[in-house]
Amino acid sequence: MADFELIERLRMPAQTKIVQLVLDGLGGLPRELDGKTELEAAATPNLDALAARSQLGLAVPVRPGVTPGSGPAHLSLFGYDPLEYDVGRGVLSALGIGFDLHPEDIAARGNFCTIDERGLITDRRAGRIPTEFGQKLTALLGAIDLPGVQVFVETEKEYRFVLVLRPAAGQTLHANIADTDPQRTGVPSLPAVAQDGASEATAQLVNDWVAAARIILKDHAPANSVNLRGFAKDPGFPRFPDVYGLRGAAIATYPMYKGVAKLVGMDVLPVAGEAVEDEVETLREYWDRYDYFFFHVKKTDSAGEDGDFERKAQVIEHVDEAVVPAILALDPDVMIVTGDHSTPAALKSHSWHPVPTLLWSRFCCWDGVGEFGERACGRGSLGVFPAADEMQLALGHALRLNKYGA
Amino acid sequence: MADFELIERLRMPAQTKIVQLVLDGLGGLPRELDGKTELEAAATPNLDALAARSQLGLAVPVRPGVTPGSGPAHLSLFGYDPLEYDVGRGVLSALGIGFDLHPEDIAARGNFCTIDERGLITDRRAGRIPTEFGQKLTALLGAIDLPGVQVFVETEKEYRFVLVLRPAAGQTLHANIADTDPQRTGVPSLPAVAQDGASEATAQLVNDWVAAARIILKDHAPANSVNLRGFAKDPGFPRFPDVYGLRGAAIATYPMYKGVAKLVGMDVLPVAGEAVEDEVETLREYWDRYDYFFFHVKKTDSAGEDGDFERKAQVIEHVDEAVVPAILALDPDVMIVTGDHSTPAALKSHSWHPVPTLLWSRFCCWDGVGEFGERACGRGSLGVFPAADEMQLALGHALRLNKYGA
Repeated sequence: MADFELIERLRMPAQTKIVQLVLDGLGGLPRELDGKTELEAAATPNLDALAARSQLGLAVPVRPGVTPGSGPAHLSLFGYDPLEYDVGRGVLSALGIGFDLHPEDIAARGNFCTIDERGLITDRRAGRIPTEFGQKLTALLGAIDLPGVQVFVETEKEYRFVLVLRPAAGQTLHANIADTDPQRTGVPSLPAVAQDGASEATAQLVNDWVAAARIILKDHAPANSVNLRGFAKDPGFPRFPDVYGLRGAAIATYPMYKGVAKLVGMDVLPVAGEAVEDEVETLREYWDRYDYFFFHVKKTDSAGEDGDFERKAQVIEHVDEAVVPAILALDPDVMIVTGDHSTPAALKSHSWHPVPTLLWSRFCCWDGVGEFGERACGRGSLGVFPAADEMQLALGHALRLNKYGA
Repeated sequence: MADFELIERLRMPAQTKIVQLVLDGLGGLPRELDGKTELEAAATPNLDALAARSQLGLAVPVRPGVTPGSGPAHLSLFGYDPLEYDVGRGVLSALGIGFDLHPEDIAARGNFCTIDERGLITDRRAGRIPTEFGQKLTALLGAIDLPGVQVFVETEKEYRFVLVLRPAAGQTLHANIADTDPQRTGVPSLPAVAQDGASEATAQLVNDWVAAARIILKDHAPANSVNLRGFAKDPGFPRFPDVYGLRGAAIATYPMYKGVAKLVGMDVLPVAGEAVEDEVETLREYWDRYDYFFFHVKKTDSAGEDGDFERKAQVIEHVDEAVVPAILALDPDVMIVTGDHSTPAALKSHSWHPVPTLLWSRFCCWDGVGEFGERACGRGSLGVFPAADEMQLALGHALRLNKYGA
């Protein structure tokens, strides 16, 4: 992974530009028909031509065998080892819905749940109520006032919501609070217990909020109670521009990815619509103002999650046609094409498989393999490498690192 | 990197011999003509035949994307992680000119510079004065006496020199002193400031020396002042023979490489001339007396630094003909062919690219690829691996490590 201390010692100014094109959930698995993966089955003349002049490899998002969530997977692409740079669940949920989290806020992930007349949990997901019902309930919960703090309750999806407590100016909240979710049924929810002295007052506020929420939800079974977990603040990571000396910008259309980029201090650029063409337009417009662009494509992952092999291949083909040549036309100095993790249609979910990745620069010793796919990358000269190395490699190829030692 | 504790636990005596043939700056980049690198373009029948019976891979000198200097790059080949085993600039410079540094000496890298009548630096490199002029000036500075220490001033190259202070018997100098070089022009040089109490007396000596130097240099513009940086002592690393249980010898013709070998406690063997044939002669002569030989070839790097693709390929061809068969004729048990870093002619400098490497032993599961080059190594079974692993691998292949655990 990126060694921030080393980079601070070695980095030097340059005019070079780096683009990291991230096709979410890019990696796949072979289909029965012909043994090809989604990426291999897709017709990608532009990526194949670029691959011929690139180094190929397989990027490991977190650790071998470990399936990452979107937050850690992206932190890794940005050079932050996700095991070292741990983001609390509450903060990830807040980022995921695009909540404008302030540094002093405390966020927790909430689940509506069902309790019986004795207060014992019978369903930890409240019968997976529809999102619309969840939204109605969070609106009701928004009426709960707590002394000295602003309270936000926002629906994430279905039975999931986010609770954010924002202290009054000059006040401080503390997030070292254990989950109230016992992670099983047949038992009552746990009280919010402070794990240190400083967090006791905040834990009391949380318990007051839960008590008020239960009264409001009493007659709304199956969503007649709540569990909370992952109390956390913005962890205050080293900022991407400070670490790398790069003016970094994110081009993405979904809240989670904008959120993670913002968490590390990138500027999140406006995109006119949801289409990759809109994202390309943003890239063109801001090209001169940044040194590094994180360019995120969401729909590969969505298709993989839906188990739709064909659609995932089509999304890749569309990126090949509408995005890759447009980026190259801007004449970047380093271009990486990768994914944050694999989402094989065969699994309908994120997976642990390392992600096909190409690195192009004017100074790369290209493998000469004119094909971008899992198998080609498995034989590539980047080898199987930590995704968190990509930024350091990119800095080298962008001539942005001084020599180490004489 | 080599795990010294583990090796100490496992190592066992053996009669086996290891040769590490280091072609300085071996790694290159493709040329326009046919997409071949220097090593690929060179006709190397002996290396190719050896490759067919070897494992191939790409060695990362320091960290992905990081370009190493010669000192750190060689430490890595010897199994010392250069980020952990950090050598001060002054010591590296002293080693680079072949200065016989004693453990108690303090060395600093010096630069002649130009100052104006107000004492502000106008040129940090004194107009890059020729080496001969630098030598004349260091001879003048050699006249400066300091109480209780011996002072050495030696030209490195052009405006660069090395200052060494050697304490009288029983005395101790301390090197925790900040650079006097402000790293920019338009400001005066900084005084030598001790970073701890113990270094105060030494800092005072340095300031006295600088004051005396300025008086001597007053009329020698553009070299009318000096800056000093990288105050350091021999860091006292674990000794190569102790760590590995190998009688280790270095065969090299340039001061820097002899110096780094000496720094880790290898014996530096005499070589009659500058040619690789002279080095081979030394290897033959001392073959029975050592278990490990570091065999260094300089001219690959020099040709790369000159941007001369053809000459670099020719040096490689010459090594293939004059060195490789001669080493194999001595019947080593393990032979590694590698470089300390890449020096692509296209970049005319050291670079961050991993280095083509082959490892041959009687017990290696050879890749069966009869070609030694960047691309062949990029597909090799050693993968992309830290150069600092080579010694530990070599010990294994030399049957010099016991089983770990029962």
